[in-house]
Amino acid sequence: MRPRSVDLDIDLDLARRILTDFLRTEIRRTGYERAVVGVSGGVDSALACFLAAEALGPDHVLALRLPYRESSADSLTDAEAVIRLSGVESKTFPITEMAEPLLATLSESERVRKGNILARLRMVVLYDQSAAVGGLVIGTGNKTEILLGYTTLHGDSASALNPIGDLYKTQVRQLARHMGVPEAIVAKPPSADLWPGQTDEGELGFTYADVDRLLYLLVDERASPEACIEAGFEREFIEAVIGRIRRSQYKRMQPLIAKLSNRTVGYDFLYFRDWGT
Amino acid sequence: MRPRSVDLDIDLDLARRILTDFLRTEIRRTGYERAVVGVSGGVDSALACFLAAEALGPDHVLALRLPYRESSADSLTDAEAVIRLSGVESKTFPITEMAEPLLATLSESERVRKGNILARLRMVVLYDQSAAVGGLVIGTGNKTEILLGYTTLHGDSASALNPIGDLYKTQVRQLARHMGVPEAIVAKPPSADLWPGQTDEGELGFTYADVDRLLYLLVDERASPEACIEAGFEREFIEAVIGRIRRSQYKRMQPLIAKLSNRTVGYDFLYFRDWGT
Repeated sequence: MRPRSVDLDIDLDLARRILTDFLRTEIRRTGYERAVVGVSGGVDSALACFLAAEALGPDHVLALRLPYRESSADSLTDAEAVIRLSGVESKTFPITEMAEPLLATLSESERVRKGNILARLRMVVLYDQSAAVGGLVIGTGNKTEILLGYTTLHGDSASALNPIGDLYKTQVRQLARHMGVPEAIVAKPPSADLWPGQTDEGELGFTYADVDRLLYLLVDERASPEACIEAGFEREFIEAVIGRIRRSQYKRMQPLIAKLSNRTVGYDFLYFRDWGT
Repeated sequence: MRPRSVDLDIDLDLARRILTDFLRTEIRRTGYERAVVGVSGGVDSALACFLAAEALGPDHVLALRLPYRESSADSLTDAEAVIRLSGVESKTFPITEMAEPLLATLSESERVRKGNILARLRMVVLYDQSAAVGGLVIGTGNKTEILLGYTTLHGDSASALNPIGDLYKTQVRQLARHMGVPEAIVAKPPSADLWPGQTDEGELGFTYADVDRLLYLLVDERASPEACIEAGFEREFIEAVIGRIRRSQYKRMQPLIAKLSNRTVGYDFLYFRDWGT
């Protein structure tokens, strides 16, 4: 049985306006005018870069290319196209030298540790550059990967503001096309580019098209696992996805502080970001 | 007028029991048995290390010394004493080589950027080692520095569990003495050890003894600025501290996601860490 049709289409003009307004308002509210974004050559960071350029003006956006020795040449070329088409400022800072002393302690098979080290070193450079230019770091994680926990904590998940974190991968592709991100970037198989031939879908064991429809039912429509089975999804797939969401909850939270006093950060000391300003 | 006496004394036996129970329970709840902690030679990480050793057994705790070329020899010696007295396992991994390629882009005067780079690189190694040994990263930030934002986001503020985040610096010292941390470590002027002679209190412009009493009134007792003036604090000091708390709120929160859907991470998709497990 084919899964029931789930409509992930969004109003692209409206989304574009909301997301650029969000970036402009939230950055200026903190007293900044600039943004820094890591551009990998993938569709998520391409969309984030296009949105930031439209929100702030391309001369107020710094795109960083942060290649590692083994990054594919295609990724670098795709990132170059994003920079050229969005018109933003750019810098390239290879992270190879920073990574080697720690990577040298790993065996070849420890790919997850390696991927996390590279993602976190990119964060280190990105945050440093945001201080250098006086701007905020723009997040490039989509709703699918945030919910699945398919991110590196304090790595690619780190940002000040994330314009695309409420868009499923399928919706990122829609909006990216709408905004003029090249079809080659939108259509290529998503990859963390850690080894030749790596793809997200190969690692996850399912496609974004499938998991986005399932996540929409589970999260946005609050459907029960039983309702998802009725909608045509396999029980095993549903349980695997729910398991991933639960096990990655810690990545979507602040560190847990041991409570001792009347008022503890994260429990009873809670404010908005711009509380009182 | 001397500020009114504010009682920061805590029941040390009770705190010790609560905090070791917290570490044991929360680590095992996630299926782990081990902890990793960065030990700098300062009193905060010393206390965190002693608590973790008591909670899990010293052979289940890995202390990491992560010196930079310019770190003081005393810091390394103090860290060594913490490791010896708590009986934990230890490793030393100098971060100099990882730091140099990025530090080379900074001018000598950019001390804040330098400090943030070093703190974040320590996080990278700490998290990698936590994956290597199958343990959780223990936080070493106290309530004073968390409230003042005197931390590096995705650097020393990053952890899975923080046993001392609800203790003011003054209380960290009390509990550290109680648990046998050497008096030389408890009594030395707190420092991020970024340049010779650097002290927290010199940089902040006030003492921990003063700010802890003020924070206790403002946060724990929810006193108004006027009530703090009546208690003997200067208006200028009160305003400076409230300003610091407000401006650093973003460090105590997850990235802000632009809301588009019915259910967005951080707004209406909210669970406990151990939701459903």
